[in-house]
Amino acid sequence: MKTPVNVAVTGAAGQISYSLLFRLASGEVFGNDQPIILRLLEVTPALHRLNGVVMELNDCAYHLLQGIVPTDDALVAFDKVDYVFLVGAKPRGPGMKRNDLLECNAEIFSAQGKALNAVANPNVKVLITGNPANTNALITQRNAPDLDPKCFSAMSMLDHNRGIGLLAEKCNARAEDVRNMIVWGNHSESQYPDLTHATVKGVSALSLVNDEWVANEFVPTVQHRGAKVIEERGGLSSAASAANAAVCQMRSWTIGTAKSDWSDWISMAVISDGSYGIEKGLFYSFPVKVSPEGEVTIIQDLERSEFSRQCMLETEQELKIERDAIAHLL
Amino acid sequence: MKTPVNVAVTGAAGQISYSLLFRLASGEVFGNDQPIILRLLEVTPALHRLNGVVMELNDCAYHLLQGIVPTDDALVAFDKVDYVFLVGAKPRGPGMKRNDLLECNAEIFSAQGKALNAVANPNVKVLITGNPANTNALITQRNAPDLDPKCFSAMSMLDHNRGIGLLAEKCNARAEDVRNMIVWGNHSESQYPDLTHATVKGVSALSLVNDEWVANEFVPTVQHRGAKVIEERGGLSSAASAANAAVCQMRSWTIGTAKSDWSDWISMAVISDGSYGIEKGLFYSFPVKVSPEGEVTIIQDLERSEFSRQCMLETEQELKIERDAIAHLL
Repeated sequence: MKTPVNVAVTGAAGQISYSLLFRLASGEVFGNDQPIILRLLEVTPALHRLNGVVMELNDCAYHLLQGIVPTDDALVAFDKVDYVFLVGAKPRGPGMKRNDLLECNAEIFSAQGKALNAVANPNVKVLITGNPANTNALITQRNAPDLDPKCFSAMSMLDHNRGIGLLAEKCNARAEDVRNMIVWGNHSESQYPDLTHATVKGVSALSLVNDEWVANEFVPTVQHRGAKVIEERGGLSSAASAANAAVCQMRSWTIGTAKSDWSDWISMAVISDGSYGIEKGLFYSFPVKVSPEGEVTIIQDLERSEFSRQCMLETEQELKIERDAIAHLL
Repeated sequence: MKTPVNVAVTGAAGQISYSLLFRLASGEVFGNDQPIILRLLEVTPALHRLNGVVMELNDCAYHLLQGIVPTDDALVAFDKVDYVFLVGAKPRGPGMKRNDLLECNAEIFSAQGKALNAVANPNVKVLITGNPANTNALITQRNAPDLDPKCFSAMSMLDHNRGIGLLAEKCNARAEDVRNMIVWGNHSESQYPDLTHATVKGVSALSLVNDEWVANEFVPTVQHRGAKVIEERGGLSSAASAANAAVCQMRSWTIGTAKSDWSDWISMAVISDGSYGIEKGLFYSFPVKVSPEGEVTIIQDLERSEFSRQCMLETEQELKIERDAIAHLL
């Protein structure tokens, strides 16, 4: 049997983790023959609830789950870790300003970046899900200077999959019929879900839908989908679909896009190398390919309409503002 | 590509279903090459919340999920259905007596039995998870006289897996090292988790632990595990491990025990044929084998200690009392 991999999850007693952990333990991300050890980080007051989750994981008698390490110490959680899901983040409280939210999360993620820098496997893959995910990824990466910046990505696959689902529905097609979706920029309401290169059963999406639907229906629906789900679920957030996106993104990052459900490319927020004129160093969602060895390459030279250029700039601008708000912690 | 199977889930906006649906859609139960259509039943006031779950399922862009039918009409939900998870049940409210609970659930499940009888695929597999699961299975089956009683089972795999997890922990072993666990009887605090035939790495479990631990620790811990998880999770129930057990039981029932993680046998509450002297017609948990075609056989002629006989009788007695309380609905 293979050597177990160490997989850390933060915010492990929260709702997204509750939808994520049981899928990790069943082999969905790392394969049916890959044993795992779950290293579960929570804040001290939530350790009691985390213990309930640990009991439930034990109550599943998973064959692949060879150990569980619940802890409130990031140095323990990240010790020699191969894969990390940074799920835990402070949600926006009543009366909290945007900058307060950025700042208190920046403190959490700078501490976790330092801990990863100190004890993680040098080839670790860190997927940042906790919001504001892109700026949290930036601060985590900047606080882990000994790790390759390519060890970090922020989650775009929830938006990517939302875009596929909506386009498929509009075209009376299935999710598997849709190819070459792109989400550019920030995982926020400024994101730009782009259909320019998308196809449905091999036919250009933009030949099947009109520009007005794209600009006034498709783009804002994807941008505001999270809030709409919360409304329908009576205040509960989109935990299961977020967890599913984390499964998809980490799986594609691990086995490569050719073997994943998205045989073309996926959207992934990675550190910008200046592609498409996006400022270097920002964590920005691009269309990427991943090799079977886990090497991520930004798809180059895609044509962009004036509308696309404008949308891509706006979401870049928001990322710069977020970065500047927490610059003293970088 | 294979023809899609129709899979119905009741209580589809509830917590167990929230942990179950996304695993069904990912292919965990019916296989990575088996498309499915989810038919989701809820009570009318919960259709709004159910719509939020449907949005999230669409937001996953699952390749295997070829349709979703949300409804408050059992005849729509069960139309030509191949697999059914009866998850929804009325929980015990404040001041509610045990017989009130039995009765109001019996009304729900008798109606669902009639609907299954009218419109389900004659080879349907119906897994009853909603509590009191065994008696709910009885009433469902008795209200579906045109269906083979072997189309119905109540869930025992949560208790089975809890037993494996606890024994593995006690013996410093892994879940995969444990074989031949048995849970007898009712999915309630009267159940009897039996280690008589269990082995750990091929060694008899009873040679590794003492009788006192079995009677005073192991048995009561499995029996009361659900309440303990609720306590640790701050009032939230063991939804994810229950959903996992439903995945395990339906998967083993579909592909057979030889191909499942439990290459020996599983525990499954099925209609008694009088095996081990258990009254015919009761839904009682037995150790069973399942053929690759889905045929369930109760393991026969297992030796039983006096302690085992007594425990098996007590849980049978409880099932008779439950049946008698709702006899007018049978």
